[in-house]
Amino acid sequence: MIPTIEWDGKYVRMIDQRKIPSRIEWYVCRGYRDVIKAIEKMVIRGAPAIGVAAAMGLALGGFSIRTKSTATFMDKFRKIAEEMLLGRPTAVNLRWAVERMENLVERMGAALVDEIRRALKEESEKILAEDIEINRRMGWNGQRLVPARATILTHCNAGSLATGGYGTALGVIRAAHEKGKKIKVIADETRPWLQGLRLTAFELMEDGIPVTVIVDNAAGSLMRQGMIDLVITGADRIAANGDVANKIGTYQVAVLAKTNKVPFYVAAPLSTIDSTTKNGDMIPVEERGGDEIFRFGKMRIGPSGVSVLNPAFDITPAKYVSAIITEKGVIRPPFRKGIKDLLS
Amino acid sequence: MIPTIEWDGKYVRMIDQRKIPSRIEWYVCRGYRDVIKAIEKMVIRGAPAIGVAAAMGLALGGFSIRTKSTATFMDKFRKIAEEMLLGRPTAVNLRWAVERMENLVERMGAALVDEIRRALKEESEKILAEDIEINRRMGWNGQRLVPARATILTHCNAGSLATGGYGTALGVIRAAHEKGKKIKVIADETRPWLQGLRLTAFELMEDGIPVTVIVDNAAGSLMRQGMIDLVITGADRIAANGDVANKIGTYQVAVLAKTNKVPFYVAAPLSTIDSTTKNGDMIPVEERGGDEIFRFGKMRIGPSGVSVLNPAFDITPAKYVSAIITEKGVIRPPFRKGIKDLLS
Repeated sequence: MIPTIEWDGKYVRMIDQRKIPSRIEWYVCRGYRDVIKAIEKMVIRGAPAIGVAAAMGLALGGFSIRTKSTATFMDKFRKIAEEMLLGRPTAVNLRWAVERMENLVERMGAALVDEIRRALKEESEKILAEDIEINRRMGWNGQRLVPARATILTHCNAGSLATGGYGTALGVIRAAHEKGKKIKVIADETRPWLQGLRLTAFELMEDGIPVTVIVDNAAGSLMRQGMIDLVITGADRIAANGDVANKIGTYQVAVLAKTNKVPFYVAAPLSTIDSTTKNGDMIPVEERGGDEIFRFGKMRIGPSGVSVLNPAFDITPAKYVSAIITEKGVIRPPFRKGIKDLLS
Repeated sequence: MIPTIEWDGKYVRMIDQRKIPSRIEWYVCRGYRDVIKAIEKMVIRGAPAIGVAAAMGLALGGFSIRTKSTATFMDKFRKIAEEMLLGRPTAVNLRWAVERMENLVERMGAALVDEIRRALKEESEKILAEDIEINRRMGWNGQRLVPARATILTHCNAGSLATGGYGTALGVIRAAHEKGKKIKVIADETRPWLQGLRLTAFELMEDGIPVTVIVDNAAGSLMRQGMIDLVITGADRIAANGDVANKIGTYQVAVLAKTNKVPFYVAAPLSTIDSTTKNGDMIPVEERGGDEIFRFGKMRIGPSGVSVLNPAFDITPAKYVSAIITEKGVIRPPFRKGIKDLLS
């Protein structure tokens, strides 16, 4: 499996996800601003992967602060952390990782700057390793929900490339496959960015898991025809009541699953749950540029001057979610209680 | 307004819809096989437009039959008609137009071959003129369902370019706009072929009707946020019970409209109603090549060897349809009775 992101000496490198599957290319970040740019431009995407990238970015930031005074260091570090938070507002893992790194710095108030720098790098490596471990546990917990033979619909890419490795939704699929279950995956292509066609299909083909791509428009019709046994997606943020923010189109898939009596599961680490957000409508939804829709590479597709609306995420009310799969176990409705219990 | 299709002396020419909006280019058909190819390759598309094209194609076919014997002519004409029917199986207007042209030939059993040829050409011109007139009446009937201010979602292109002119769903929108109603249109881009982004946006912008394009994934989220007042689509075939075959993704839009209490209207001429098809599940759904999904122009997007499923249409059960707008009036549920009454 290709690593999504890793340290390469004193730099951080990540697979440029804008270029998959045409090219497998490293994108090298020499400073924290490179990481911010990579997150904004979607060189790296996926809530957990963004969290790991932010942590590594802050460690790079630490190396760039030229001072021997711990107080000055902490001051400048906080400013870098604020900059890092501006990137993409919907996924909560970014904030989670930034807070974890800030807490580490706070705790080391008495240490030498060099020690803090080293600790930040180590913490970012730990976050990466933990993320992979968490995904494996989530996969293990989730595969129990998958029948011995199943056709699974997934939306966007909640795979190895969206995380430190292994994946959330695709982690569950991988675990079911490793257990010897006969799994077929139907991947929504996921416009506008085509994460399904480009990334999910690529990942699963690499792993020898049968995958068929459809346009997002076909998901409902397949469910109506009884061709889908269950749906699994990832999440960018889960509110305290179980409402889920995820890639635009997820809400539709969830409604169609309910209409057609197909279980709809969300796989996400606890770091994606934001208990300070009461419900989904309080989650900020990022709007991205129209270029993602009316251009394809350098080709313009839509009429010149066309008006476009491009929300990157949507909110799926908890009532459409059959269960939330986490590294600590599977949460069933009512979610408010289940989430509270699991987090405490 | 650009004509979708017309006679140009002894040839038939149509706007090549694969190239809109980058280029406005005529595609000239010198024989009936050019028309069959144009229908298959989607130079022309949209159920009513395909009907007109088939009629003109058969007239071209008539000119190509080299005989003075009426019996031989009729025999060869029937074979051409059979060939014409193979093109695209879902839209019933193709069959409707072919049958109308065949009936004409049958009725002229005593005439000279030259007279039949001329009559076929005239009939195809009549079908075109009638189609435009029908659309205008449909528009008039349908606009009464549109509030004085409304944001209307439409899927695919059921516009001037999908018909002889004016449009079915977009005909209703045009009529409402002409009546002075404040209309905003949200157009699903409609993957894989992007009829919404390329054709609907283009048409409405030409007419000065405000239009904003979204990815198909965003339609449900907009409805959930109360941003859509009603939905209007066209149809490729309507069964006797009111089930609707239309562009892939229509079913999803209809389910989401019902879930969010948004009216879902279908605008289609009576020639789209197939009373010999009992229900939607008996309508053949065309499957098209995967290229439409994993290629963009000459660019390959998906991983090499990726498996793709590309149904071009889906079935929307009648229970999701609020009303069917036709040139003879608006049909409300129960549709079986309403359709029967209107057709008789």
